[in-house]
Amino acid sequence: MKSFTIRSAALAALLPLAAISSPAVANDHGAAKSAAIYAPITKAEVEAAQQAWGNALVAISTEHDNKGFAAAKTLAGQVLDSAYGYGMGPVLFKPTLTVAPQTFRTTRDGALAYFVGGDKTYASDTGFALKGWRKFQIDNAGIVITGNSAISMGNVTLWDAKGNMTKVDKTWAWTRGADGQLKIVLHHSSLPYSAK
Amino acid sequence: MKSFTIRSAALAALLPLAAISSPAVANDHGAAKSAAIYAPITKAEVEAAQQAWGNALVAISTEHDNKGFAAAKTLAGQVLDSAYGYGMGPVLFKPTLTVAPQTFRTTRDGALAYFVGGDKTYASDTGFALKGWRKFQIDNAGIVITGNSAISMGNVTLWDAKGNMTKVDKTWAWTRGADGQLKIVLHHSSLPYSAK
Amino acid sequence: MKSFTIRSAALAALLPLAAISSPAVANDHGAAKSAAIYAPITKAEVEAAQQAWGNALVAISTEHDNKGFAAAKTLAGQVLDSAYGYGMGPVLFKPTLTVAPQTFRTTRDGALAYFVGGDKTYASDTGFALKGWRKFQIDNAGIVITGNSAISMGNVTLWDAKGNMTKVDKTWAWTRGADGQLKIVLHHSSLPYSAK
Amino acid sequence: MKSFTIRSAALAALLPLAAISSPAVANDHGAAKSAAIYAPITKAEVEAAQQAWGNALVAISTEHDNKGFAAAKTLAGQVLDSAYGYGMGPVLFKPTLTVAPQTFRTTRDGALAYFVGGDKTYASDTGFALKGWRKFQIDNAGIVITGNSAISMGNVTLWDAKGNMTKVDKTWAWTRGADGQLKIVLHHSSLPYSAK
Repeated sequence: MKSFTIRSAALAALLPLAAISSPAVANDHGAAKSAAIYAPITKAEVEAAQQAWGNALVAISTEHDNKGFAAAKTLAGQVLDSAYGYGMGPVLFKPTLTVAPQTFRTTRDGALAYFVGGDKTYASDTGFALKGWRKFQIDNAGIVITGNSAISMGNVTLWDAKGNMTKVDKTWAWTRGADGQLKIVLHHSSLPYSAK
Repeated sequence: MKSFTIRSAALAALLPLAAISSPAVANDHGAAKSAAIYAPITKAEVEAAQQAWGNALVAISTEHDNKGFAAAKTLAGQVLDSAYGYGMGPVLFKPTLTVAPQTFRTTRDGALAYFVGGDKTYASDTGFALKGWRKFQIDNAGIVITGNSAISMGNVTLWDAKGNMTKVDKTWAWTRGADGQLKIVLHHSSLPYSAK
Repeated sequence: MKSFTIRSAALAALLPLAAISSPAVANDHGAAKSAAIYAPITKAEVEAAQQAWGNALVAISTEHDNKGFAAAKTLAGQVLDSAYGYGMGPVLFKPTLTVAPQTFRTTRDGALAYFVGGDKTYASDTGFALKGWRKFQIDNAGIVITGNSAISMGNVTLWDAKGNMTKVDKTWAWTRGADGQLKIVLHHSSLPYSAK
Repeated sequence: MKSFTIRSAALAALLPLAAISSPAVANDHGAAKSAAIYAPITKAEVEAAQQAWGNALVAISTEHDNKGFAAAKTLAGQVLDSAYGYGMGPVLFKPTLTVAPQTFRTTRDGALAYFVGGDKTYASDTGFALKGWRKFQIDNAGIVITGNSAISMGNVTLWDAKGNMTKVDKTWAWTRGADGQLKIVLHHSSLPYSAK
């Protein structure tokens, strides 16, 4: 029950397109609505997209813990289709834990394997989104908007169900998708450098 | 028979999306296909969009002469949906022959009324696209591409079935639509100034 | 005296770069200032650029009436360099009163000739900006911002010193210049169609 | 002597603006030159900017080995001003070896400290560009161009004078600067993940 509630809330944050199913139509004599695909991206949209990403990660983990692998994988696929731009072209994705020669995941299959594992083509993947994540925090070093695309850099901190914390250095870039929503076209995540 | 052939050719030029019904997907390690909605617009795309506009005008006129008003209106609606950006927001459209207070046609209804007439809300419209156009020529003074949008200015010359010629000063602006195709978001047409 | 005051005010509106002579620098951890050359254009910037254009036209006319042709021409040149993008490439400019084969003025020389006349290469030009303009009003049918460029369409109404009024259908497109200010890269002006 | 030759070649690659000192002016009736600041970015420009970055790193190292710290620091400052967008706003820069709370270097000072060290504000910096680099190779996983900005992701491999090799996962984003040249506005570099 609870899991359903959580998942729904997370999905609502993740899938704003559900609430905006009709094409973006501006009023007759004003500027186009911000959701028109040519509209400049706003900082608020970037921040909402970041929150949606964090909520989605927690939702996939929670779904996994409550309903199992298949449900989590289905949800992860929906997240990829909604939040990432794989439908528009290659996505430049360097996940936190991948290794050569599969470091970069420019295809949807490679991204899905990273998030949920279970794909023998990507045998080293253990399913990053299934690691019991329950909470996240995003601290931006900066957001820069360059017309129809936007980039952000900063830290993302994750906590799992046992309270363990992981902090990564994170870069994202977005452009608008055909539905007017921001889509990730670049995602570079790395563990902080340790001088040892 | 002949009209059908002509219409088909014109529509093929007008409706390239028919040939590209699947989402733009680039190969794994290359740059995104030019049809991705974030891809920079090319000069070749602008010139193709201009030719598609001219072909569509001739197609509507020819449809009207061969099949009548209803068929021409249906075709004009398809042209508007395919070539103009009314589905994304307002379009800044100043047709050649409109007068105040209905000079600017920022809605699809206003544009359709201009092209085919027969709409009592726009009582002064006589149907510009129904004037027997059979041939066109586009002479650009320039094309400027500014990232995700493009503008052109120049002359468009039209000939009707009787050989009468009309020349207008024409400005267009395009951005990409959700289908990856260029959509007109601005169209300013005017008769040349005559010192009298 | 009065003319000097008017000119200064107009120029202040026209030449905002004077007040922003240093490069746009954003603070350390925030988004870039709107004047960074990659920043999305805002509606307020478009409206300010429109007002600056009108003020400049009045300023050139007033300068002409008070100080003569040479001063007006100098001012017109400053206006062109500040408000138009001739320094970045061709500008697609179709002035209200030009005729073939010099309808389109894609070079600075052609634009200057239109505004102040006195250039035998453009013998039909009589100096549009020297016609005693004293007041203007801009009524937008719409403004559409497509990332790093913006377009507007509507009416511009001008009054001269004797109270005569001229109304034109006007389209502009802007992108940012190297100084972070909007530059006109397209300008299509035409007298309203008259059915006669 | 030799170092001078090397430095000059590297700088020529790095500072293409030297060769394009005049403002970008397109011919009268064609599209704007690619160096106009509104022009879409091309893949060739991205690849050239990547090579310029590698050449600059080698040039700074070589300058350091041949002429010492002061000369290397001067050159590094020129590189930052030419290749990065610090003059336009914050740059989102996560260097390979930085640590919290100075992980992100959004200011020119922070970037310079990383490249050459010797700045007590950034006491942990040892001067990444002074590590004797002599050769580099860039292997792109992908380049995506989104109108007026471009992103790339892939590996950069560096070799020092002793033949030691370092390979990093690298993301860059560029927009055009006021001089028409690409400027880095985002740079995320990280050591490959090691499962240990």
